[in-house]
Amino acid sequence: MTRKTPSLRSFLIGLIVALCLSTPVVAVAAPFPALPEVAPAPTDNPTTPAKVELGRMLYMDPRFSASGTVSCNSCHNVMLGGDDNRPVSVGVHGQTGGRSAPTVWNAAFSSAQFWDGRAATLEEQALGPIVNPVEMGMSDIEQAMQRVRGVPGYAAYFEKAFGDDSMTAEHAAKAIAAYERTLITPNSPYDRYARGDTSALSAQQVQGLKTFTEVGCNACHSGAAFNGPALPVGTPFLNTFPVYKDNAYVAKYALDADTGREEVTNKEADRNRFKVPTLRNIALTAPYFHNGAVATLEEAVQVMAKVQLNRELTPQQVADIVAFLHALTGEFPAQTMPRLPATTGWTFEFSSAK
Amino acid sequence: MTRKTPSLRSFLIGLIVALCLSTPVVAVAAPFPALPEVAPAPTDNPTTPAKVELGRMLYMDPRFSASGTVSCNSCHNVMLGGDDNRPVSVGVHGQTGGRSAPTVWNAAFSSAQFWDGRAATLEEQALGPIVNPVEMGMSDIEQAMQRVRGVPGYAAYFEKAFGDDSMTAEHAAKAIAAYERTLITPNSPYDRYARGDTSALSAQQVQGLKTFTEVGCNACHSGAAFNGPALPVGTPFLNTFPVYKDNAYVAKYALDADTGREEVTNKEADRNRFKVPTLRNIALTAPYFHNGAVATLEEAVQVMAKVQLNRELTPQQVADIVAFLHALTGEFPAQTMPRLPATTGWTFEFSSAK
Repeated sequence: MTRKTPSLRSFLIGLIVALCLSTPVVAVAAPFPALPEVAPAPTDNPTTPAKVELGRMLYMDPRFSASGTVSCNSCHNVMLGGDDNRPVSVGVHGQTGGRSAPTVWNAAFSSAQFWDGRAATLEEQALGPIVNPVEMGMSDIEQAMQRVRGVPGYAAYFEKAFGDDSMTAEHAAKAIAAYERTLITPNSPYDRYARGDTSALSAQQVQGLKTFTEVGCNACHSGAAFNGPALPVGTPFLNTFPVYKDNAYVAKYALDADTGREEVTNKEADRNRFKVPTLRNIALTAPYFHNGAVATLEEAVQVMAKVQLNRELTPQQVADIVAFLHALTGEFPAQTMPRLPATTGWTFEFSSAK
Repeated sequence: MTRKTPSLRSFLIGLIVALCLSTPVVAVAAPFPALPEVAPAPTDNPTTPAKVELGRMLYMDPRFSASGTVSCNSCHNVMLGGDDNRPVSVGVHGQTGGRSAPTVWNAAFSSAQFWDGRAATLEEQALGPIVNPVEMGMSDIEQAMQRVRGVPGYAAYFEKAFGDDSMTAEHAAKAIAAYERTLITPNSPYDRYARGDTSALSAQQVQGLKTFTEVGCNACHSGAAFNGPALPVGTPFLNTFPVYKDNAYVAKYALDADTGREEVTNKEADRNRFKVPTLRNIALTAPYFHNGAVATLEEAVQVMAKVQLNRELTPQQVADIVAFLHALTGEFPAQTMPRLPATTGWTFEFSSAK
């Protein structure tokens, strides 16, 4: 026996061990970029600390709803996954909306806002719910701004963010949008994987990522936010939902009852078309779809494969994809609660009934 | 001219300057102690970081109300003055309560809780609103705890705070109470004054303090929290309100409509008796009194002098006392928003109507 044989054996054993330890067996390249840590801001509303501070206050303040009980955060709760974990939200006077609240986390990475993409920007979106009769229910934005001006302590914050005599709806919207642009959840396991840390995903999650792309989920759910390609601001990335209607899910979950973007454009071609939602933090935002009809992520994956791709997934494929989707839960930046200025000399007339 | 004369002149000038600069003319001793920076905790519920963390989560979470829309923080908003700046609060299904929400800030310094003092401790108080039909509206505490257990992520927090298999109502109450004991607002201008910083109060505030005690407000509003003397836990410091009924305020503000503690004891001697509320942060908690009938602090001071002490205050006296009361606004410790665990596999049946 020469000394060569054990050396070769050692080398081969070492090689096998190294191969086993180095990466998961099914390792695939990361096909989507990591989530940026800073959101782009429009040139006419650069993000500043003073705007973010004011925006956070307005976002958390329920006094600008008809009943005085509903804030932005009531339905888009940043303490949760940026929604309210309900099929549809509850607005003023117990009224419910027609669509499930989308998450506010990472909304800054959408090229348009609302399920039907009808708002081009976060600024435009911000004022919508305030005057929606089943959400915050104010008769008009000016009425809401009178409430804001009715809280003396707000003046200084507007001044700091926008200068003198700046208590306008436009500035309120800009402040809320600036705050929302800070609501980003980077460094999910997937992001660490995409940056080269192959240990960030479990073997099942890597397999799930592979299945996700092989099955074709990435036809729509691509890009850093898994909500489609980068499009110009104001151009929503839309798809028909459901595409395939010849299955039991469509009736079971009333998937085609909402005509989607057709409501905005009045074009039949836009029937049942919706903005492709982000999959970031999707494990935290049950129930699922525009109508919140599906309770679990497992069922949502199964339904999506069938109604969008006409595919029947095996239980293993579903489990793998769900495991991967859990890897899209990011790090939530610590949020300091704002101090809200008091209503002094109480004079608000909140409405108490429908 | 000797050198003595200018020296004497210098001394006299210096003395006069010193007298003018040193303290306000009407300086009075601080008759009430400064607010402690730590609240006492009962021996069976020492405050721990893990309890505070869990308690903050439960306090902010609306899912444990019948409608899923009302949390402790909805009415006792720590972003505001610990209340909701409303005459009476709005609970589930738009229902309103009969009494104005007391502030949660510094509630730890009350010897009993609720306006009628019916709860001995914060632990006992914490579970009350959950099953109050017009507040959070759960049918019983066990139903609420089923909701808590229905959010898988809560288990680890109970375990960390209380050990294995600890998801009980008793522990939930202990956690909420532990959190509430951290809600203290020290270092108000008055506290700094009480610690010897005579510049912390303006001359008018010092005059207001003097008037406050001369008029007799301190008969009830004494002690560090301005809510009466230290009494054993569970013994509320009560007073009749209103004492003097032969004035226009009683009818105008319906001050005697609520029978107060009589509702608890069924004793006529307890008719219209209420716990003396803290005056800490009173400038932030309009509107005033158990029924929230009075909008401004000026009017509240005027009314109190008349219906409790049968005194008519001059506008100057009112202004001075109000200036002093503003000096009771303390420093609010920064609050980090909790991350609330998600409802996964959405199964909650929230009630949507009365």
